[in-house]
Amino acid sequence: MDYYALPIGNLIEQLSKLPGIGRKTAQRLAFYILEMEPLEAEKLALAITNAKEEIKYCSVCCNLTDRDPCYICSDDRRDKSTICVVEGAKDIIAMERTREFKGLYHVLHGVISPMENIGPNEIRIKELLDRVYNDKLKEIILAINPTVEGEATSLYIAKLLKPLGVKITRIAHGIPVGGDLEYFDEVTLSKAMENRREL
Amino acid sequence: MDYYALPIGNLIEQLSKLPGIGRKTAQRLAFYILEMEPLEAEKLALAITNAKEEIKYCSVCCNLTDRDPCYICSDDRRDKSTICVVEGAKDIIAMERTREFKGLYHVLHGVISPMENIGPNEIRIKELLDRVYNDKLKEIILAINPTVEGEATSLYIAKLLKPLGVKITRIAHGIPVGGDLEYFDEVTLSKAMENRREL
Repeated sequence: MDYYALPIGNLIEQLSKLPGIGRKTAQRLAFYILEMEPLEAEKLALAITNAKEEIKYCSVCCNLTDRDPCYICSDDRRDKSTICVVEGAKDIIAMERTREFKGLYHVLHGVISPMENIGPNEIRIKELLDRVYNDKLKEIILAINPTVEGEATSLYIAKLLKPLGVKITRIAHGIPVGGDLEYFDEVTLSKAMENRREL
Repeated sequence: MDYYALPIGNLIEQLSKLPGIGRKTAQRLAFYILEMEPLEAEKLALAITNAKEEIKYCSVCCNLTDRDPCYICSDDRRDKSTICVVEGAKDIIAMERTREFKGLYHVLHGVISPMENIGPNEIRIKELLDRVYNDKLKEIILAINPTVEGEATSLYIAKLLKPLGVKITRIAHGIPVGGDLEYFDEVTLSKAMENRREL
């Protein structure tokens, strides 16, 4: 057990709770912060506090936002009849980067995972249902990550929404552009074969 | 350019100033922090603020500490006639882990690096000189990292201290225990050959 002055040990402990930050990296970051300009460190601490205070969920799409409704939901140029369902707020950033999708989003904030005790009520499915009930929608695009839990969540949502008469689609699974066949697993490859298109 | 709500963008910017944290990792950390329990995020922000407020340099050895002198300098069981000179406070943690060294330390907080405009006055060499002048010392062990700048700093300090009649040594360079000859560069290998010992 290494000896650290209490405030250093505490900083290392808090940093090591972040994802992908092990004890060794947390120690390196902590010592870096301790050698930083005091003003810079204060800016970092304040950025955390401010973000937590000012960022809330959008009451429409559950995106993380500092105003309600969020900038996407309140943009009149967007097509309000199409909703793209994603797992997390950062998936919206990735999707917006394509500049292709002009509809609205819905953020689930997780996927159904019985292993981690996350059921349908722990994620924002009810809010999605409310939107389908209340708004005139043409299409729901499921863009949930194709993991085991993600697939199960997609199927669950599709089953819930089907009776409501809305068109439900899912983004394509296949080989990413620039990818090399030999590096992809057989499930991805068979999906890619299955979803082949005529040229 | 991705669009983020201002407090999120600011958090990402501050996080990406940390070493080894690129823009992508900063984004992942920021969204993780936003989804954290508010209390946990507050603990992280507070740990940064507290550490910066409570941790100062030890007036004797320049180690990072919450009391002055630090716990090593104020420990009566330690041998006050030997000083081990290191680059940073985290090197003390590594050295203490060996449980072999029972003397005191001196933290330089950097090495001389003309490329980065760090001269002898930017690091804690003067404080080391004062200790050599004022205390009865038997040995100074230089445990500065064997980089180009570290070597230059070791030689500079050795040259300064030699006239004061104190014994100056440097930790051995060679192949680390468990290391494999074929993976080490020729400089390390020739150091290891040069410093060979009879069995």
